[in-house]
Amino acid sequence: MKLHHVIESQQFSLPLLEELFETARRMEQVVARGGTKDYSGRIMASLFYEPSTRTRFSFESAMIRLGGRCISTENAREFSSVSKGETLEDSIRVINGYVDVIVMRHNEVGAAKRAAAVSDIPVINAGDGIGQHPTQALLDLYTIRKQLGNIDGLKIAMVGDLAQGRTVRSLTYLLSKFERVKIYFVAPEMLKMKEDILAHLNEHNVWYTEETDLTRVVPEVDVVYQTRIQKERFGDRLQDYEKSRGIYIIDRNILSLMKNKAIVMHPLPRVDEITIEVDSDPRAAYFDQARNGVFIRMALLAMVLG
Amino acid sequence: MKLHHVIESQQFSLPLLEELFETARRMEQVVARGGTKDYSGRIMASLFYEPSTRTRFSFESAMIRLGGRCISTENAREFSSVSKGETLEDSIRVINGYVDVIVMRHNEVGAAKRAAAVSDIPVINAGDGIGQHPTQALLDLYTIRKQLGNIDGLKIAMVGDLAQGRTVRSLTYLLSKFERVKIYFVAPEMLKMKEDILAHLNEHNVWYTEETDLTRVVPEVDVVYQTRIQKERFGDRLQDYEKSRGIYIIDRNILSLMKNKAIVMHPLPRVDEITIEVDSDPRAAYFDQARNGVFIRMALLAMVLG
Amino acid sequence: MKLHHVIESQQFSLPLLEELFETARRMEQVVARGGTKDYSGRIMASLFYEPSTRTRFSFESAMIRLGGRCISTENAREFSSVSKGETLEDSIRVINGYVDVIVMRHNEVGAAKRAAAVSDIPVINAGDGIGQHPTQALLDLYTIRKQLGNIDGLKIAMVGDLAQGRTVRSLTYLLSKFERVKIYFVAPEMLKMKEDILAHLNEHNVWYTEETDLTRVVPEVDVVYQTRIQKERFGDRLQDYEKSRGIYIIDRNILSLMKNKAIVMHPLPRVDEITIEVDSDPRAAYFDQARNGVFIRMALLAMVLG
Repeated sequence: MKLHHVIESQQFSLPLLEELFETARRMEQVVARGGTKDYSGRIMASLFYEPSTRTRFSFESAMIRLGGRCISTENAREFSSVSKGETLEDSIRVINGYVDVIVMRHNEVGAAKRAAAVSDIPVINAGDGIGQHPTQALLDLYTIRKQLGNIDGLKIAMVGDLAQGRTVRSLTYLLSKFERVKIYFVAPEMLKMKEDILAHLNEHNVWYTEETDLTRVVPEVDVVYQTRIQKERFGDRLQDYEKSRGIYIIDRNILSLMKNKAIVMHPLPRVDEITIEVDSDPRAAYFDQARNGVFIRMALLAMVLG
Repeated sequence: MKLHHVIESQQFSLPLLEELFETARRMEQVVARGGTKDYSGRIMASLFYEPSTRTRFSFESAMIRLGGRCISTENAREFSSVSKGETLEDSIRVINGYVDVIVMRHNEVGAAKRAAAVSDIPVINAGDGIGQHPTQALLDLYTIRKQLGNIDGLKIAMVGDLAQGRTVRSLTYLLSKFERVKIYFVAPEMLKMKEDILAHLNEHNVWYTEETDLTRVVPEVDVVYQTRIQKERFGDRLQDYEKSRGIYIIDRNILSLMKNKAIVMHPLPRVDEITIEVDSDPRAAYFDQARNGVFIRMALLAMVLG
Repeated sequence: MKLHHVIESQQFSLPLLEELFETARRMEQVVARGGTKDYSGRIMASLFYEPSTRTRFSFESAMIRLGGRCISTENAREFSSVSKGETLEDSIRVINGYVDVIVMRHNEVGAAKRAAAVSDIPVINAGDGIGQHPTQALLDLYTIRKQLGNIDGLKIAMVGDLAQGRTVRSLTYLLSKFERVKIYFVAPEMLKMKEDILAHLNEHNVWYTEETDLTRVVPEVDVVYQTRIQKERFGDRLQDYEKSRGIYIIDRNILSLMKNKAIVMHPLPRVDEITIEVDSDPRAAYFDQARNGVFIRMALLAMVLG
């Protein structure tokens, strides 16, 4: 199947997801064998208008494991020609002359789509503002599949800042493509999942419920997907931030309520919303997620580079 | 012919330019074939005391297409030992122990020459203050040659901030080596080409004229070389900046006055001095310039690395 | 011998030092032959929470000369998830999923040890606060060995900011492992070597003396190890800084007092504590140190990567 740009999680059909996960599985073997040289003539640009060392490292590791090379900036916003008034479109056209694929993180919603519109080479969205972060959602789904075997029939609790976290938004779009999924949104009133997502679920007949009591939900689900209350998204509403954090903490107590085969996920970084005593529990899957991210990004890069 | 450091455009004789352009042409084929491994043991340092993602990416892409590797900093001024009082000369001597070629962008005029004076390995000037930016001038000349076939007899209009734009200064030096070139400097009074360049042209018997009306010049020339009014070079003379911008805009109207075979060039980034309606005109050559920059820089790197 | 993490200079036994120096000697030949591809499947992360272009470039050059690849950040503190509240331990665990070895510079004493405690892959300390900078001490020792043939019986003057310079601290630990070494600490009262190091020397029966007059010491020693008075470590005690600098300057006069076979060393960057007239003297060894740094770091990387 042909994949060119990677902009949003909605673009992935079930067969395309199947191909992606199959490719990622092969990439696990490639890495175990010490990498490949298959993409040794290819160059990836990490074009980050907003810094994210973690995501950038994950993509660059993926490209290097494929045998490719990277050129990289983490403060394109401050440094590049943007500060001289250049449009994103012009920057993308120029970079088309330098590399074979662009991985872009941007602070504005919709930036990835704008970039793709003028780019002959593939653009991969590594997060645009509070918009989407599709590769995170894809690695989340891949982790669930690896750990639990099947997505159809999955029961998942999404916990924390559902209003502003793009991760849970992208993941929800993906989950809505599967059968008999049940989603439990657990959030304080002011951080509830937004209407557009709920409308999308209604339209696709996906079962969901909104809860505020984590302990009631936890025994039901296969996945507890915890998220960080993102201070940086609150602006000067510091009081709201303080009110929101600390409400839902995954600790030994929550673990004791969980099913034996259930898993705890988190897009990371975490602050204190999962206590470190959870790390050593076999159900803790958040560091596996980070590891799976490299395999998924290798697969995506291989697919768009052809 | 032997090329060691690349410091200023004046250093390029006609035969050296010929060899450079011939090498660049071969590099276009190398890239089309997916690059080479010829320089796989070699390391380039991007030593940028002033950020320029665009120029850095272009050089790094060039080095990687040659099979080489890069180590890179874009804020050498803030980060490196400079802030601890180290001289540029000491930094260069130390970096001589690490790599095979240094590409340097610096904020001070003459910095590239100072670096070259103490460096055993090649130093390539990627712009020093309002001094020179020779690789930009070389790629400009290469673009003109590719698009128009010949430099001798060229008629070119240089438009905009001629006083502070180092690009037009470096390009003028190069053009003065050719026969029967005619240069039309089009600038507002306060941004006129500086006396040292005009004296150089007089000395070499190069025809030039200074104009303020762009529409009178445009029908005459083979190249309209537009430049950005560089806000950052005006310091606190904001009123002067505001007075200067917007005087010369390349738009559909200007295009209609141009010869059919003429081209529009720009060193980029642009702000609004070329309207986007011009982009789709076959005479728009500015994104080709960016692409040609990689070939010219590959050729320069190959020549200095031997 | 098995080497996993590189955290502090004390961890190096005499046989391990011997193996390291032997490996570094081989690396000099590898570089002279144009590098190797032996580590072409391996990735190093430069994880710098405090910028140091020099040290980072040295490590990245070493990794590339070995055939390996690098992913890199120089402001992990400002950019990474640290600013969102992530612990160093979590960051290290995540990066374990991306690369094969971590080179870390951190602003806090003990950070390297904390990182190593949770890391399955090797961690190399590239400086942690005013704690240690073991690879600098190792390259210093390697330089002495190369230039003077033997460490046993060495007489060395350490000059300048001994209280706050981590380089002299790490080097002293290493020297204490050898026989009949004599150390002359030359510092102004407020920058004297700290008690913990003196206690360590007493415990290991290493001869040392504390002096304030450089000219009396210089004729005695084989190595004059000059250091920079580090303004940035004085905080707002600017008066103390001004009082301390300029007391000990290595110039032609000091050179004339030195033995013919003695050498001048400096971890660099220097400001004015060695005058540039010294650079051309054959006893000036400080730029050789920088060069030797690449060989030592190649050897360390090769040993930890196995």
